[in-house]
Amino acid sequence: MEVKTVVVRDKSKERDWALPPGCTVTEDVDDVLDDADIDLVVEVAGGTTFAKDVVFGALKKRKDVVTANKALIAACLPEIEALLEDVNAEGDKVSFGFEAAVCGGIPIIHTLQTDFVGDSVTRLRGIMNGCTNWMLTKMEAEGVSYTDCLTEASALGYAEADPTLDVGGFDARSKLAIMIRLAFGVDVSEDDISCKGITNIKQVDFAYAKELLGGTIKLLGVAEMAAEGHELTAYVTPAFVPDGNTLAVIDDAINAVEITSENLQSSLLVGRGAGRFPTANSCVSDIVGCARKGLPEAFAKKTTDVTFMNDFSSQFYLRIQYRNEVGIVGNLGDICAKHDVSIYSLLQKPESDYFVLITEYGPRSNIKKVAAEVEGASWCVGDTFLMPVATKE
Amino acid sequence: MEVKTVVVRDKSKERDWALPPGCTVTEDVDDVLDDADIDLVVEVAGGTTFAKDVVFGALKKRKDVVTANKALIAACLPEIEALLEDVNAEGDKVSFGFEAAVCGGIPIIHTLQTDFVGDSVTRLRGIMNGCTNWMLTKMEAEGVSYTDCLTEASALGYAEADPTLDVGGFDARSKLAIMIRLAFGVDVSEDDISCKGITNIKQVDFAYAKELLGGTIKLLGVAEMAAEGHELTAYVTPAFVPDGNTLAVIDDAINAVEITSENLQSSLLVGRGAGRFPTANSCVSDIVGCARKGLPEAFAKKTTDVTFMNDFSSQFYLRIQYRNEVGIVGNLGDICAKHDVSIYSLLQKPESDYFVLITEYGPRSNIKKVAAEVEGASWCVGDTFLMPVATKE
Repeated sequence: MEVKTVVVRDKSKERDWALPPGCTVTEDVDDVLDDADIDLVVEVAGGTTFAKDVVFGALKKRKDVVTANKALIAACLPEIEALLEDVNAEGDKVSFGFEAAVCGGIPIIHTLQTDFVGDSVTRLRGIMNGCTNWMLTKMEAEGVSYTDCLTEASALGYAEADPTLDVGGFDARSKLAIMIRLAFGVDVSEDDISCKGITNIKQVDFAYAKELLGGTIKLLGVAEMAAEGHELTAYVTPAFVPDGNTLAVIDDAINAVEITSENLQSSLLVGRGAGRFPTANSCVSDIVGCARKGLPEAFAKKTTDVTFMNDFSSQFYLRIQYRNEVGIVGNLGDICAKHDVSIYSLLQKPESDYFVLITEYGPRSNIKKVAAEVEGASWCVGDTFLMPVATKE
Repeated sequence: MEVKTVVVRDKSKERDWALPPGCTVTEDVDDVLDDADIDLVVEVAGGTTFAKDVVFGALKKRKDVVTANKALIAACLPEIEALLEDVNAEGDKVSFGFEAAVCGGIPIIHTLQTDFVGDSVTRLRGIMNGCTNWMLTKMEAEGVSYTDCLTEASALGYAEADPTLDVGGFDARSKLAIMIRLAFGVDVSEDDISCKGITNIKQVDFAYAKELLGGTIKLLGVAEMAAEGHELTAYVTPAFVPDGNTLAVIDDAINAVEITSENLQSSLLVGRGAGRFPTANSCVSDIVGCARKGLPEAFAKKTTDVTFMNDFSSQFYLRIQYRNEVGIVGNLGDICAKHDVSIYSLLQKPESDYFVLITEYGPRSNIKKVAAEVEGASWCVGDTFLMPVATKE
């Protein structure tokens, strides 16, 4: 293999690496796309405009493509698949590698593509964003505020250029959408996946949740198959993760993806989510895979008879800020009963303005109705905060 | 794909599965080896005699081979590699898949073969035997004795037909030897790897180790590269795993392999180690890989300038049974000083016949000299018990 041409936005910018012998640098991507000697294009520009032209242009010219572009794949997966089918209808197969696009240091793409071909995945669950996991770890361990944590995470390079992609859960959601396609063979638009970030988590949530249940709070991406493979639900949300669930001890800027399946039962992959070297490493393994003509088929699993469901069932944690009035607990009990929500436990400490309830297992739609009605009560102050409680297994 | 012929030892034995249409059952393996229509042979017989004839016979006839036979690969890896080189010197490539042979439900073979091609692995470490991990979990959680645990593990089907392979650490060692080849490109005979099982662990070890350090005891397989890639050490041993190390929470019959490398830093793969469905699943993914001509090269990484070293450095845990005499601690201190071993902490409870010392970081050869000399002292009763303390990272 030989690196022939590198395309950059600005040739004059200083770089901290040397060019391999014989390699040229250009600002014009057509120097690559129009060069018949180039068999493979690595796209690490990011974004969905220029990068899309590069990826689609290269595939159309029958060049293998390796990309680290999560946003592009999440946004355009069906388009990429259609183009690959078109290009691969005849002649030598063109390969599309994107191990680097999802959880950089975890070989989750190859694993889903190859090791589950004879298996049925029933659930994907994991910590899919390193920045927010680092922040949650620090918030809990050191009592640092959300805002201070975000400032520090950005300074350390853990956050995306636009940190709302991290803290809003959108980065995790893009990864989840891609993994859903590989694990279940189902195309789900990322916008269809309900997404809640960590912006509303308070210190009190760590303390209350720990006291009520024992464990910690993680931002989880979850996709679960029900109705014997015909109904899929997926969401990104902070979740209470009880002690005994391995995800509870995955700290700092680490990602972890748990795959539940019929044959393998439970597989967990843990590693650095991103960074220069993990991303480069995943690109290199895909490049070598292309050269060996051994890269797995990009989107082999495909199912169509699956309905995507918004609602899902779980135990839930609901934190409510209140002002003292007579009859609050009675009123809350009435609201829960009205919406068929059973209370598992309740905690209110005299020194706190909050109380927290944990529900029995039930649909999210019901507890959301409870939250909405509570927010309308005279004794409720501001917004409530709702998150599911993850199962141990 | 079509399953054409199944070879069994005894055709008359009742089976709990149905044959696919057109499939025949035979007791003569030559019905498979001599059948030019058969492109791929799956060997799940086990052992290193008949199974070896099947695997080598099939490869020589240029049939792809998929096997779950850990013992065969660990014992004959260089022979298999030489045969593959020979067969693949010309013509269509013959593939050799053995994902099912090591930690059944964890895709560790494919991962090491493909995702670390551009990386340098510096350490492999993990829980590589499900039976012993189940036993250790139960011994600690329920205070059950080693003997009772083993009886129950066998009844549950967690133990090998010969359980000394599990409890003696030999099963873990076979897996470690295979993974060493894939991760480091180094051929190490399994007999060269120092191996200690769990047979001498007592209840007191869980209690003392927890009190001194916080954490638990796991049977670990470890291989570590030093001297800038020129010295490798490897061993299987019970180890004290401190809280904060993810391996400490991997309980029951679960396996976990942690790969430390220059690019990815730390990757952890967790899953069921064995069992009917995980093993079958890994075989199926290899069969599909063969059919797609996309199975990774079996033994691509190869290095020769590595010296295998017996000794390694760590903190150590040494448990000593004693009879009361004057001057024991002074005597022990003298012995440690003589062999250049620094004591990190020491615990002796009045109600116990044991005391335990934790050393500072240092070579195993030194603490083994201490143990030998202690065992010769008049105040020492029976054998001492020595294990390393795993680092958190």
